[in-house]
Parts: sequence; structure tokens; C-alpha cells
Amino acid sequence: MAGTMRGLWLENKQLSLRKNLLIPDVVAGEALIRVRLAGICSTDLEMLNGYYPFRGVPGHEFVGEVVAAPEQEAWLGKRVNGEISIDCGECASCLAGMPGHCENRKTLGIFDYDGVFAEYVRLPIRNLHAVPATVSDEQAVFTELLAAALQVQQQVRVRPQDQVVVVGAGRLGILMAQCLKLTGCDLKVIVRRPEPAALLATLGIESASAQEYRERSADIIIEATGNAEGLALAKRLVKPRGTIVLKSTYAGDVSLDLSRFVVDEITLVGSRCGPFEPALRLLKLGMVSVEPLITGRYALEDFESGYQEALRPGSLKVLFEF
Amino acid sequence: MAGTMRGLWLENKQLSLRKNLLIPDVVAGEALIRVRLAGICSTDLEMLNGYYPFRGVPGHEFVGEVVAAPEQEAWLGKRVNGEISIDCGECASCLAGMPGHCENRKTLGIFDYDGVFAEYVRLPIRNLHAVPATVSDEQAVFTELLAAALQVQQQVRVRPQDQVVVVGAGRLGILMAQCLKLTGCDLKVIVRRPEPAALLATLGIESASAQEYRERSADIIIEATGNAEGLALAKRLVKPRGTIVLKSTYAGDVSLDLSRFVVDEITLVGSRCGPFEPALRLLKLGMVSVEPLITGRYALEDFESGYQEALRPGSLKVLFEF
Repeated sequence: MAGTMRGLWLENKQLSLRKNLLIPDVVAGEALIRVRLAGICSTDLEMLNGYYPFRGVPGHEFVGEVVAAPEQEAWLGKRVNGEISIDCGECASCLAGMPGHCENRKTLGIFDYDGVFAEYVRLPIRNLHAVPATVSDEQAVFTELLAAALQVQQQVRVRPQDQVVVVGAGRLGILMAQCLKLTGCDLKVIVRRPEPAALLATLGIESASAQEYRERSADIIIEATGNAEGLALAKRLVKPRGTIVLKSTYAGDVSLDLSRFVVDEITLVGSRCGPFEPALRLLKLGMVSVEPLITGRYALEDFESGYQEALRPGSLKVLFEF
Repeated sequence: MAGTMRGLWLENKQLSLRKNLLIPDVVAGEALIRVRLAGICSTDLEMLNGYYPFRGVPGHEFVGEVVAAPEQEAWLGKRVNGEISIDCGECASCLAGMPGHCENRKTLGIFDYDGVFAEYVRLPIRNLHAVPATVSDEQAVFTELLAAALQVQQQVRVRPQDQVVVVGAGRLGILMAQCLKLTGCDLKVIVRRPEPAALLATLGIESASAQEYRERSADIIIEATGNAEGLALAKRLVKPRGTIVLKSTYAGDVSLDLSRFVVDEITLVGSRCGPFEPALRLLKLGMVSVEPLITGRYALEDFESGYQEALRPGSLKVLFEF
């Protein structure tokens, strides 16, 4: 399917719209996907600051339709989204069943692989997940983020009697809170502003200020702010033998009193991408609510307004429509 | 049992021998113990640097004989050692079955409670463990340290197929290696000098230099050096989704690239004191070898020589005989 397409292009931290990008060629084992909706993620915003030295089409949250799949015609016309790590299938991590940790991986729209802020994208067939018919595009575009939220429960056992705290009520924090609520745990989200508290209340989730929560009393704390202050708060609130889950990356090194971790036997768990199938399952069953997180929809031509909205404090999820 | 006793006294980081310390009074629920052997631990050495602002009799590793136990005469004459945390029995940690994390705890010879570098010591009966008859004093005095070693396996599941690394071949490192070896795992101890490598070889445990071990290949790494360099090495050797166990405290804050923990989903587990009964079980069954770790035995009068020997690089366990 030769031809050209519209797409965003990132180079030297500068974003521009290009109208004559080449539609990717695909070979057997790959699919060409026409993007229907795409979402702006924190990583996309950080890339504007040079977080990764990426040159190409950014974007990795999407839902689309397969328009070419050589030798795998059963995929044609299917609505899909896809895992963002393009793995080698041969390294120690791949052979250990951890393709997301492939030593030679490329990452959709982040590292050495063109992303989804364009009309078309190619992906290996093994990265694809078919979207159930009853899941809307607006829901499906959240699959990758919801999978990352579920990774907390994939890594850490959350028990019904646990006191659980989410620090940070951004898009990921709100999705994690919804997933954690399903466990029956005693859940609080630490918020600084009234707007996220109001949104959480409509979802049946309690919020609290940092001062209202009792120190050294949480079994599990999920740190989703990505700043040292959030981590310091997590350390104050966690109980002895408790667990802190790090759910966001930090710019540069962070200075830590590790002796506190030893004396109080605290566990720190780094957590990144998660499993797509359970995320699609929860969406299909209507057990998490994602539409209230959409705070803006833009055409690709209006990408500057879209990124501005995504950068606005309090903004949650901004989508590009194609 | 009124009277005076000999004991070491720590005050303003200065250690001295006192010959007229009062033998502690004991009430119902407590035992008075005549100390038979006591061991110098790293914490005792750090206390000379002001690690804790302690004033009193230091020391917490011991084996002794119960000489008074009001209303609990069954303990009289028993050889015992004891848990070092004196808990309140009433706080959230105590009620959660974690007396070692008691919020109001005193700590034997470390915090607000006189220790075992004296002829007599008092302890709550519930802290005591009877030493099996076939376990010698020289073995029994290692119980607390061996329990701390076993705490790794109490907190982290070690599987037979795991690649496990111990960084640091001091007294605790060598005991942990012996315990880990029992799991059947693929174990290496990272050493810098030939002496610990030779001792480990006699115990059937392989050692390696930091350079010999393949980066990003260990499932579990136990960091027992207490310095930032050891932690940096642990980070280099651990594989994605691997676990680093922190088994020693650090002076001051440590600067960490936490994004590596998130991206590679590494788990960090702080680990401190451990369970006495399994430690006594392994000693009784002869499954760990502790005597080769004894590098010096001193009378309390020669405490200065004893501490000097304990501070010597390569020294392992120094005992005080009574």
C-alpha cells in the first residue's frame, strides 16, 4: 500500500506536522494499521524535553483497523490495539517470557520505531490485540494505560484488608485507583486539588490530603507523581514491612535514606507496562470508567492545541482523531 | 539477686570496663540471665561512631543461662538466647504480629535497654529461646546473626533455578550464602580478597570477582556491604524483574537512579532481623557451619583488643568469654 500520509514528526525536540510521510511497508508477520484514535501520554510530553533522543513519529496509545496483513489475512478489517515493545524473540529476557524487557527492543513511538501520531502504523502481528465489538474506540484507546495500571496487581498481591494509597491523581493514578478498588481494599487517593477529588468521588473512590492520612499506616503505596516529593510522602505513609510501588520515572537521580528501608523492611517495586488482555476484559465488562478522563479531542492538524491541553495542569487524556 | 557485676559501658562514644554495675532487678515475666558467650556485631562497631546515641551496656548477640525467673521457675538453669527487640505488645505493629517492628520498642544493647557485654542481663521471658542441648555455646551465640541471614528467605522466595548473588563476604554474607546454598540455587558470592574466597570454598560455596559475573543476569542479589559501591554493583548485576535485598544499613542518604528500577521493574527489599527458631533448627541439624567464622576470643577485661580485632579487615566474629 504505497503512498503518503499525514503524521507528526519529532526531531531535535521539535514537533511538526508532515503531510508526505511514506506509508510504512509491511512484510509477513506484520500488520499495517489505519489509526482511528490516539492518546497523548506523559512520555510523549517528556520527549519534548529530550527524555529520549527520538527522531520519528511519536505516540504509542491507539486503536485502529488492520488494512494489510500479508499471509495473515484473518486480521484484515479487525479493530486492534497493540503492545508497544517490539522484541527480538531471541535474547535472555524474551526466552524467559519477558518480551517487554527484551534487551534489543524497540519501542513504538519512543525508541527507534515510528509511532501512532500518523494515519498509518505498522506493528508485528504478535503485538496486536483484537478489540471486542462492545468496546468503543474511546475506551479501547485507554488499553495501554489501563494495562500499565493493572501491572501493579500483576506484581504485588493486594489483599482485601490492605490499606492502599495512590499518590497522584493524574490519568494513571485514577485508572490505578479504579483497578485497586475492585480488590475490596481500603483505598485512598492523595490529591492536592478539588477537581480530581470530585472526579474520584463520582467513581466511588475516596480521596484525602497528604495531611489527613495517618503516617506509617499504609500497607501498599503507589507513587505516581514522578517527583521526589511524592516519594518522600510515600515513605512517610508506608507502614513497617509495607510496599511502595514506583509507577513513574524520575528525572535524574533521587537521594534516598535507604537505612529506613532496611530498618522498617520496606519493599520498593518498580512497575512499568502491563498486560493488555485483562485491560480489555475490564473495559468489555464495564468495570472501569475511562470516558470521564477525556479532556480534549483534536485533529492532527491542531496538534499544537492538543499538546497544550495535555500540558495544562488538571488535564487528563487528550486524543487525536483521524 | 542484688549485687554488682563487671560489664562494658558506652557513653559519649567511649567504651570502658566497669566493675561495679548493678545486677539488674527482674520482675515476673522477666528472666535474669548469666551471660556465657557474647559476640561483637557490626552495629556494636558503628555505635562507637555515634550511629545510635546509646548510653549503657552494649551488645546483643549472646548465649547464657537463666539464673532467675520469678513465677516462671521452669526456665531456671536453661541455656537460652533471645530476641533483641523489647516490644510493648500494644501498638499496631505488635497487634499485627510484627513485634520486631514495635513502634515503642527498646533494643537490647542498642536503644534504651542494657545489653549483654556484662555478666548478667535481663530480658522478657517471651524474648527467650531455649538452646537445644546438642548446640554448643559457640554455635548458639550465632543464632541472632543466622536468624538475620534467614530473614532473606523469609521475605523473598528463592527458587532452585534462580541465579543468586551475595555481595560482601563478611560474617553476615557468609551465613547468608550458607542458608541460600540450601535452596539449590545457582549461588555466587562476590569477593574482593582471596581469604573469604578460600573460606567459602571449604564450605562448598563458589565465589567470583565483580568483573567475572555477567551483568543483568542475577535473579536475586543480596547487598551486604553497606556502601554505595556495593549497591551500584547490585544494580549492574540484577536482571529485569529481579530483586535486590538490602541487608545492611547505609550512613546518610544514597543517590539512586530510580528510573532504572521502574523501567526494569526491579524490586528492592529492605531486610533486618529474622526468626530464631529456624536458626536454632539449622544449628541443631548441623546444616550451617559457624565455628570457622570465629576469629578471636577475649575476656571482657581485654575488650580493647577484642574491638580492635573486630575492626580488622578480614576479621569475622569476635567473642567475649565470661
